[in-house]
Amino acid sequence: MAAPRGDTRAVGERSIPGGVRMERSILDRVPSLLTDLYQFTMAYAYWRAGRHQDCAAFELFFRQNPFGGGFALFAGLSDCLNYIKTFHFTDEDVDFLRSVLPPATDAAFFQYLRGLDCSGVTLRAVPEGTVVFAREPLMEVAGPLVVVQLLETSLLCLVNYASLVCSNAARFRLASGHKRKLLEMGLRRAQGPDGGLTASRYSYIGGFDMTSNVQAGLLFGVPVSGTMAHSYVTSFTSLEEALPKTLVAVNGNRDAVDLISLTKSWLGRVCKLLGADPEKIHDGELAAFLSYAIAYPKNFLPVIDSYSVTCSGLLNFCAVALALCELGYRPLGVRLDSGDLCKQSLDVRSVLRLCSEHFSISAFDSLTIVGSNNISEQTMVELNTKENEIDVVGVGTHLVTCTKQPSLGCVYKLVEVQGKPRMKISEDPEKSTVPGRKAVYRLIDADGYPFLDLLCLALESPPEAGRPVSCHPLGTCDTPLTVTPAEVTCLRQEMFTKGQVTQPLSSAAQSKEQVQQSLQKLHPRHKRLQEPDSYTVALSEKLHMLARDLRRGITNKNNVVSPN
Amino acid sequence: MAAPRGDTRAVGERSIPGGVRMERSILDRVPSLLTDLYQFTMAYAYWRAGRHQDCAAFELFFRQNPFGGGFALFAGLSDCLNYIKTFHFTDEDVDFLRSVLPPATDAAFFQYLRGLDCSGVTLRAVPEGTVVFAREPLMEVAGPLVVVQLLETSLLCLVNYASLVCSNAARFRLASGHKRKLLEMGLRRAQGPDGGLTASRYSYIGGFDMTSNVQAGLLFGVPVSGTMAHSYVTSFTSLEEALPKTLVAVNGNRDAVDLISLTKSWLGRVCKLLGADPEKIHDGELAAFLSYAIAYPKNFLPVIDSYSVTCSGLLNFCAVALALCELGYRPLGVRLDSGDLCKQSLDVRSVLRLCSEHFSISAFDSLTIVGSNNISEQTMVELNTKENEIDVVGVGTHLVTCTKQPSLGCVYKLVEVQGKPRMKISEDPEKSTVPGRKAVYRLIDADGYPFLDLLCLALESPPEAGRPVSCHPLGTCDTPLTVTPAEVTCLRQEMFTKGQVTQPLSSAAQSKEQVQQSLQKLHPRHKRLQEPDSYTVALSEKLHMLARDLRRGITNKNNVVSPN
Repeated sequence: MAAPRGDTRAVGERSIPGGVRMERSILDRVPSLLTDLYQFTMAYAYWRAGRHQDCAAFELFFRQNPFGGGFALFAGLSDCLNYIKTFHFTDEDVDFLRSVLPPATDAAFFQYLRGLDCSGVTLRAVPEGTVVFAREPLMEVAGPLVVVQLLETSLLCLVNYASLVCSNAARFRLASGHKRKLLEMGLRRAQGPDGGLTASRYSYIGGFDMTSNVQAGLLFGVPVSGTMAHSYVTSFTSLEEALPKTLVAVNGNRDAVDLISLTKSWLGRVCKLLGADPEKIHDGELAAFLSYAIAYPKNFLPVIDSYSVTCSGLLNFCAVALALCELGYRPLGVRLDSGDLCKQSLDVRSVLRLCSEHFSISAFDSLTIVGSNNISEQTMVELNTKENEIDVVGVGTHLVTCTKQPSLGCVYKLVEVQGKPRMKISEDPEKSTVPGRKAVYRLIDADGYPFLDLLCLALESPPEAGRPVSCHPLGTCDTPLTVTPAEVTCLRQEMFTKGQVTQPLSSAAQSKEQVQQSLQKLHPRHKRLQEPDSYTVALSEKLHMLARDLRRGITNKNNVVSPN
Repeated sequence: MAAPRGDTRAVGERSIPGGVRMERSILDRVPSLLTDLYQFTMAYAYWRAGRHQDCAAFELFFRQNPFGGGFALFAGLSDCLNYIKTFHFTDEDVDFLRSVLPPATDAAFFQYLRGLDCSGVTLRAVPEGTVVFAREPLMEVAGPLVVVQLLETSLLCLVNYASLVCSNAARFRLASGHKRKLLEMGLRRAQGPDGGLTASRYSYIGGFDMTSNVQAGLLFGVPVSGTMAHSYVTSFTSLEEALPKTLVAVNGNRDAVDLISLTKSWLGRVCKLLGADPEKIHDGELAAFLSYAIAYPKNFLPVIDSYSVTCSGLLNFCAVALALCELGYRPLGVRLDSGDLCKQSLDVRSVLRLCSEHFSISAFDSLTIVGSNNISEQTMVELNTKENEIDVVGVGTHLVTCTKQPSLGCVYKLVEVQGKPRMKISEDPEKSTVPGRKAVYRLIDADGYPFLDLLCLALESPPEAGRPVSCHPLGTCDTPLTVTPAEVTCLRQEMFTKGQVTQPLSSAAQSKEQVQQSLQKLHPRHKRLQEPDSYTVALSEKLHMLARDLRRGITNKNNVVSPN
């Protein structure tokens, strides 16, 4: 029985038994001083004013959907929860801060810092891997003013890139469809080592099948995959270097066979079948393929474009693969890493089919063609419009560095202090904030599609299924809207309180599943990669009025307006 | 005496006494499995073929100067050296690899991996912080084939982003000129926590003066700076929250003064002077400024655009700052974080001047205006053409994520095995490699400007000052060139051999100095940010002939050509 096309059991590609390994210690990645200095200067000023225990709430959100798209995916939550769980300052941290803040800084402040933790913090958030939209609060962090202010930079840093690369991966997956397997291979081009590791994790969560990054396999259970580089091929110059020369057939009943002689005889038959010139075939490449096949007879998938695909690489592949088949092994396929991938994949497939028919080798019907070469989202879209035979796509730079938009631009804004809503007014209306602590509801239509996310005051009664609700869409000219949801879900959950994580942390595989579920529910018009329909995020009547009154109050100087 | 304009002794900004702190452990950042799986699959195939000890050499280079510019800066070397010094696999690493590679993999291979280190590796490189150009080898890594292949991904990952962000920072510095101070503040928008930390370090090396990132201060001795966020300002609602209310004058001879009353009286005088409406002034903002000034009377530099610069923020600043001056303190300045920075800075400066004259307060002549708001390289260029009074510029997203080009695209190519030059031919001529181990010389003209980098065979005699040398520029239509250098320098040095780093590792401050020296030597025509003159990188006659012969040999199938 032929394995299904797209089979990519190249070396190493398997899930780690037992699920996700121990999470990498967040303190290694995000030491407590990895933050902006102004968090500490503000902390001291609050402390001096006796306001450090004031109860404050911040919200984390982004202002525009990334990549010109209609949605984003929320990611980075597990990291945030691990971070706040372990948040504290060491003696060394505090000593350094003492050397940085002015000499007149009160010594008791440093003692206070040394004792800080997040036991007073409550964090509510959208679950990891959920489809979210611009301007809705993804996370609410409430607790002592100094502590929740100090968390700002780290939480932003952990959510910004994770959500960005996860959303990018989801777009690549949407562009590709589900027929092909997607391999992330961007570590070497990432913005630093941790950028590479984060990219591997969240690309998988966003919809990729596997990564080249071994550490991501170790830490997150992401399936890892890989075969050979061009350097492997060009390092061989002659058949003498192909060692050992023999291989035992898969049934093991016979003595070791001279794979080199066997391959040479197959090479003659292949050249004859295809009318190819044996003089143009590179011995070094053949030696490289043979060595690799002898090391991995069950995982043979070489890169075939080190010299010339049609004059050398493909012929060498066919010869070695046919020899393997003769010994009962099943070769996996080939990798193309340059040139016109679509055209080459068609050429390769037609040669493979010809060999299959001519030599009656059914294994050649199900070989995998892997393509990689500076693949962008646009290339991925083209793979669905241009004829090709590519089963697996390897993506690097454009995925991991998010070349289309390398930053998501999440912000973290103060919305309440001591029960009073806070608001920042800006001459740029987009930069004004929505005051007060909120509940966020996702309204679902009769067909099961979410159609509007409603921000309400935390204390007002939630919208109900089947009941009309009046609201004010954000970002439009203040035209109110009345909608009737068929179903209502509450978007955020309490994730952390009293020093404890209150929901199970998702593994990478669980978050990946959540992404697919969340995306499946989203209407295609919001998922279009280009010019999607904009999804509505709206304020409840009460929240709208609070914002209006507060804005008037601020504009008329008085900065305090009661929410009632 | 007034402090010089641009004085930015905001809180924390100072160099760490004693120089650079302990380097962050490279093994935390780059565990040995943070690499592509194919490095291990190739390693096993080499090992099986008995080729693992073959002596091989790889070269690291990039193919195009970043950001459409005429040069790049080489950075990341210290990290690479620390990495190879400590390179090894733990039992846990090897156990994981055993679970990933096929079950038939020979157990002795894992034993071999466990014992690997870089004692047989020799690394030659351009010194950290040197101006370099596309297509010249920045690093040569020679040693046992398996080991130097295994290093590929990590070395690329460490050099790629460090060099990119260092080059980006240098462009911001070139765009800005040396009059202004530049503050990096991109941590929250970086591609992950380590991306932020790397950005802070290499932005400083590339030409920035300081960072907001405290950890970069701790680890690398980068001066740190910061004052307050908008949230600090909006968290205050009334003057009652301004606590404590008193401040002792700087000479300390008097009792504590009620700073709030003093400031209120100054506020009246300022409003009168400027014809401003006191009703439009926000008490909460004034309370925030007062609290901050009482905490940091010597470091007063508030953000003044939380509500309205001209109707509230600037007036509140002037009142508090004048009160501080009356008590003998010297305020530092203001920060603008939104809107038209150039125009606002002019308005602010004229008000500050007016106060200085009217109230005879000379400290107001030398106040610093800090500007930050989505600053790009283009904005920085405009600051030199549009009239403005900005002394310090804060840069975040565009600097750290390198939005113009978020990846440098360094590659690592095999150039020699067992003394034989290796070459990859590609249908895309730009992707073909230059074979053989090389020496790289920088040729200097009579005016002291470098004008050509010459790649020679390692063993041929170097070019000499005053002697014509014939060469073949890369990337042109093979037109040979004869040049006569006034001076010749050897660009690369041996940095690591026999398990030891053989040159002192540069501190961040030393690399920063090297960047400035190297850039100073470069002719302005190559430093132009837009459409610079292209700098010539050329092959020596002998290297050119080797490449030609090898290309012919490969094209005619025979992949082995002796270099002689």
